[in-house]
Amino acid sequence: MRLALGISYNGQAYDGWQSQPSGRTVQDHLESALERFATTRIASVCAGRTDAGVHGLMQVVHFDTDLEREDYSWVRGTNTFLPPDIAVQWARPVPGDFHARNSARARRYAYILLESPVRPSVEAGRVGWVFRPLDADAMRAAAAHLAGEHDFTSFRASSCQSPTPVKTLAPIRITRRGPYWRFEFEANAFLHHMIRNLMGSLITVGQGLKPPDWMRDVLAARSRDAASPTFSPDGLYFLGPVYEARWGLPSHAAAYDWLP
Amino acid sequence: MRLALGISYNGQAYDGWQSQPSGRTVQDHLESALERFATTRIASVCAGRTDAGVHGLMQVVHFDTDLEREDYSWVRGTNTFLPPDIAVQWARPVPGDFHARNSARARRYAYILLESPVRPSVEAGRVGWVFRPLDADAMRAAAAHLAGEHDFTSFRASSCQSPTPVKTLAPIRITRRGPYWRFEFEANAFLHHMIRNLMGSLITVGQGLKPPDWMRDVLAARSRDAASPTFSPDGLYFLGPVYEARWGLPSHAAAYDWLP
Repeated sequence: MRLALGISYNGQAYDGWQSQPSGRTVQDHLESALERFATTRIASVCAGRTDAGVHGLMQVVHFDTDLEREDYSWVRGTNTFLPPDIAVQWARPVPGDFHARNSARARRYAYILLESPVRPSVEAGRVGWVFRPLDADAMRAAAAHLAGEHDFTSFRASSCQSPTPVKTLAPIRITRRGPYWRFEFEANAFLHHMIRNLMGSLITVGQGLKPPDWMRDVLAARSRDAASPTFSPDGLYFLGPVYEARWGLPSHAAAYDWLP
Repeated sequence: MRLALGISYNGQAYDGWQSQPSGRTVQDHLESALERFATTRIASVCAGRTDAGVHGLMQVVHFDTDLEREDYSWVRGTNTFLPPDIAVQWARPVPGDFHARNSARARRYAYILLESPVRPSVEAGRVGWVFRPLDADAMRAAAAHLAGEHDFTSFRASSCQSPTPVKTLAPIRITRRGPYWRFEFEANAFLHHMIRNLMGSLITVGQGLKPPDWMRDVLAARSRDAASPTFSPDGLYFLGPVYEARWGLPSHAAAYDWLP
C-alpha cells in the first residue's frame, strides 16, 4: 500500500530536509518517527527538498508499507514521536503510481520579508530582513521579466543537480501587509537556491541599486555572477506541491494563515 | 536624563521578564546589553512583567542615565549586544515624572489560539492549541460577563502581588482567521495569570463543557477553584501599555502585523 503524508515544520533547528549523516534533518526525524510507529524501517520520497533554515507548510512525502492503520492513526501516532516543531498534518492512501516528486505539476513557495530599521526579534529566523525601504513598482517591473519559461542559470547554485536550468515560472505575486512583504513563487520546478537568488536580485532592484530592466540582462547573461548574492533562508516557506485533483490530496496548508 | 525604550521579544527561550538568579530572563539580557553599551550598570523599570514563555511585542521600560546619545544609537548599540530574539524597537527621552509602570493607563494583550486536530509545528511555542472546535457565539456571550469593573479573584494566581483583585476589563474582542483565533484583552491592569486563567474558562465554554452564563457564576464565586485551569503561555503576546498622548511614545508595535 502506498501512503502520502502532508508535513509542516519550522526549519530553524534543522539541517534542511534531506537525510544527512548528522541525523539533524527533517527527513531523519520523520523516518525515525515513522519507524517507531510502524516498528519497521520506512524510506520516504518528498515533493521538494528544502535547505537548512527553510520552513515547510505542506511538504508531501510518499512511502510504501504493509501496515494497515486508519489515516488519523498515522497522523497521531507519528506525531507522538516527532519534535514539537515538526508535525504530520494528514495521511491518505494513494494509488501505486502516485509519486510525491514526479506527480507534482508545480511547487509553491512564499518569502516573507520584514522591512524595518530594526532587525527581527519576535519573528527571528522566520522572516528575511531589509532595513532600506523597498519600491514595490520597481520590484514588480523587474519580476515581470522573470515570468514564463526561461533558462534560470543566473539564479542557479553551483551545487544544483537539476538536469536542466530551464524552468517555467508563474508571475511572482508581491504584496505587503504593514512592515511585512510577501513574495509568492510558483514554478513547475525550482533550481537549487533559485528563490533565494531571485530574492537577492529583486531586493537589489527594490532598493534602487539597479533599474528594473537590469533583471532582463541578468537573466540573459546565464551566469551566476550577473545576479545578486543568495539571500537569507529565514523567510522562505515551502507552501507545497500542486497535484492533479485526481489524487484527492489536500491543496491547502492550514499554517498558511499564520503568515503576514 | 530619563529614557524610555520599546522592546520586542520571543519569550520561548526565557524565564519571563523579571530578573532572576538564573540570568535567563529578558530583563537580565536587556540590562546586560545596556551595561555593555553604556559601560555602566543600568536598572530598568518595565510596564508589565511577562511570564515564562510569554512574548512581548511592545514592552516599555524606563531608566535614568547621564549618557547622552542619539535615540537611534541607543537602539542600534543595545541591539548589538542582545540575542536574536530580543530587540529594542525605539528609544525616546521622557520627562522625569514618566514612569513605565505607573504612567500606563492600560495594558493590552492578545492570545493566539490554533484550533486544529493536529498540534502546532511551524508555530510551536507561539500559539495555544485546542483540538476541539470552539463556538464563537458561546465564547462571546461568556466574555460579556467579564467586561467592566469586577473582583477577578477567580482568575488570580496565588502568587499574585497586586494590592487589589478589582480590575476594569474592556470588552474582549474575539475574532478568527482560518484555523487561528485571536482574543484581545485590555484592562487598567491584570492580575498574575489572569489572561491565561480567563482563556482556560473561555475555552471551557467554547467547547460546550459549560454554558456561557457559567462565567457569571465563576466571577461571582471569587474563588480560583471555580474557574478552569490556567491555559498555556505559548499564545500570549503583550501588545504593550497605553500611555497618555502627552508622553509622545509610539502606540503601535510593528510586529503586530505578524499575528494572524
